[in-house]
Amino acid sequence: MQPHIPAVDPIPKCQDDEYAEVAWGKENLDGKFSAFNIPRPKVFGKQVKFEMLYCGICHSDCHMGLNHWNNANFPFVPGHELLGKVVEVGPEVTKFKLGETVGVGCFVDSCGECESCKAGFEQYCYKGMTGTYGAPKVHGRVGGNPKLRTFGGYTGSNVVHEDYVLKIPEDMDKEKTAPILCAGITMYSPLANWNCLEGGKTVGIVGIGGLGTMGIKIAKAMGNKVVAISTSNKKEAMAKAKGADVFVVSKDADSIKANVATCDVILNTVSADHDLNTYLPLLKKQSTLVQIGGVTSPHTIVNFPLMINRWSVAGSLIGGVKECQDCIDFCYKHSIYPDCETIEANKIDWAWDQLLGEGGNPDGIRYVIDIKKSLQNESFLPAKE
Amino acid sequence: MQPHIPAVDPIPKCQDDEYAEVAWGKENLDGKFSAFNIPRPKVFGKQVKFEMLYCGICHSDCHMGLNHWNNANFPFVPGHELLGKVVEVGPEVTKFKLGETVGVGCFVDSCGECESCKAGFEQYCYKGMTGTYGAPKVHGRVGGNPKLRTFGGYTGSNVVHEDYVLKIPEDMDKEKTAPILCAGITMYSPLANWNCLEGGKTVGIVGIGGLGTMGIKIAKAMGNKVVAISTSNKKEAMAKAKGADVFVVSKDADSIKANVATCDVILNTVSADHDLNTYLPLLKKQSTLVQIGGVTSPHTIVNFPLMINRWSVAGSLIGGVKECQDCIDFCYKHSIYPDCETIEANKIDWAWDQLLGEGGNPDGIRYVIDIKKSLQNESFLPAKE
Repeated sequence: MQPHIPAVDPIPKCQDDEYAEVAWGKENLDGKFSAFNIPRPKVFGKQVKFEMLYCGICHSDCHMGLNHWNNANFPFVPGHELLGKVVEVGPEVTKFKLGETVGVGCFVDSCGECESCKAGFEQYCYKGMTGTYGAPKVHGRVGGNPKLRTFGGYTGSNVVHEDYVLKIPEDMDKEKTAPILCAGITMYSPLANWNCLEGGKTVGIVGIGGLGTMGIKIAKAMGNKVVAISTSNKKEAMAKAKGADVFVVSKDADSIKANVATCDVILNTVSADHDLNTYLPLLKKQSTLVQIGGVTSPHTIVNFPLMINRWSVAGSLIGGVKECQDCIDFCYKHSIYPDCETIEANKIDWAWDQLLGEGGNPDGIRYVIDIKKSLQNESFLPAKE
Repeated sequence: MQPHIPAVDPIPKCQDDEYAEVAWGKENLDGKFSAFNIPRPKVFGKQVKFEMLYCGICHSDCHMGLNHWNNANFPFVPGHELLGKVVEVGPEVTKFKLGETVGVGCFVDSCGECESCKAGFEQYCYKGMTGTYGAPKVHGRVGGNPKLRTFGGYTGSNVVHEDYVLKIPEDMDKEKTAPILCAGITMYSPLANWNCLEGGKTVGIVGIGGLGTMGIKIAKAMGNKVVAISTSNKKEAMAKAKGADVFVVSKDADSIKANVATCDVILNTVSADHDLNTYLPLLKKQSTLVQIGGVTSPHTIVNFPLMINRWSVAGSLIGGVKECQDCIDFCYKHSIYPDCETIEANKIDWAWDQLLGEGGNPDGIRYVIDIKKSLQNESFLPAKE
């Protein structure tokens, strides 16, 4: 891959159609997080403004912010697990009212007209979804300076077109709901797509981190049998406590052998290098290994095992707006939440270190920034000019 | 892969429950085809004996007989596109009568009890289907000496359990029907599995050889748009004459670019080394590249393209008994036949050379042995003892 040299621009000033909002971000590739003011688009048309209550920290935030995926640009304000309360609505807004709790996931716009968008799979928009952070504004539903890239949810508020905003039931546990918008939907969408919604299947989940534990909980609540798969037995008790019925140690040939051909689908969340051929034998005939982890190094596959078993190796990425809403409603109904640890904005660097560390995130914890509390601490705010 | 040293056994003698039949086979890895007598099981129970009229020559015959797939054993009598006329039925046979035209495809037995067999996908039998040639007799429905491997269709007759025998409409063009049992079903089954049976899809076909041309004809007759994909434009006129609507030259970046994201499914028949990533961009979002060619060298795939498009890379192998019958009936209804050249048994080595030669089989010809005619020529028969 051609190396990507991140652009490093000055922190932009507000235009007339923008207001200044506190954000926590990285000013350049090497820097730590600091507080600065970013321009946010003022409300118009179908735009919904919400004050941020919580924003989850996703492993993807780190990968992009550290240019692991060759697509970083600065200043960088990550966050695509946004949860807030509506404080202003545009004159054309019909779906939301002041005071409602809302969420925004991994994207804030898409073309709206292609086959994918029309089918409710905006994440596979043929013209490209507009990511909640770091994305150029191309489809017209993100206001403000059109030359700026989007800024994410590590911030005091955001303004998003109502078609990309989700309803959060008022009595959900708000602190823990934000990460459902990425970690939850990333598992929910492939489970729905590969026919596990009605239960009765056997679902393998590889990697028992933040995604994996959500996968176990959701797949189980749908009525499936869950096979948790990890490199060692360290996470066995934890995985079973979350609902796994079976635990497979992928480095133990006997453990694999004892569970050959048992899974109707396997969701593989591992984002480090790994060999797909380790997991394929766990699949039943005519079944699918779904790759969900952002591994950049190539995998090796051989035709014959795929052919003689009619196996598929597929990929899956988050979910569409409707699926996200379904996922939230499902988690609400079944009281499913990620395991979260709430932090304040001064601990973002620390939380990233936890996620990036050797054997990181052993308990599948999702870190969530308490934005309201962070905004109350003068020392976490931008220096007065 | 561990190299496989083929066993080379003497040509077996008949037991009491066997009769001698003329076959054309290879006595060892290096040898040419010769005629010899093989033991065939006598009829019993649900067994159907048919005299062979025609047997197709499949590229797989060459690959296995030359140990390309590391599974050759000798003596080797290939052929899994069998077409004949019933001459004797066992006392328990209910499905077939004397004089009927019948076919047998790539397998003659399977466990009959597993999830795959019960669902009509005997080719994915959990205990392993019994191939029509070169396979150990493990499930009990192949008679005769249980220590022998199966002998295929390059032979004067065969005896097969009725559940693995197919009905051939009497007014089909028998000479051209045999190859439908492998080349036809290999394309029909994935088309059925990936929702092309009712038409209205766009089907890519990579490799315009024996499989590819059958794929074009069948996909088109189902009512789909067909995109033929080949390394050069040499086969364009031929592919279009068979029914292709669009022709893509895979080595021409502009040709690929002009057809990006147009295919609902791509069936890739190439059995030489190739790069999957050449074809993936031709897929629509949430679509599947189906690998059908027996390539032994590994492919490289990267997670991100699969994830951001929800693409799948799958495999597919022939079809089950019911699907084979459906395929025959479909081809009969639509008068679809492979392009065949009929040869006699003395030209088997020549036909293999054609299939194996540089740029071999440029017109997608399936060679078919006229067994009846071959048996009439004294010089093609085993030497009298």
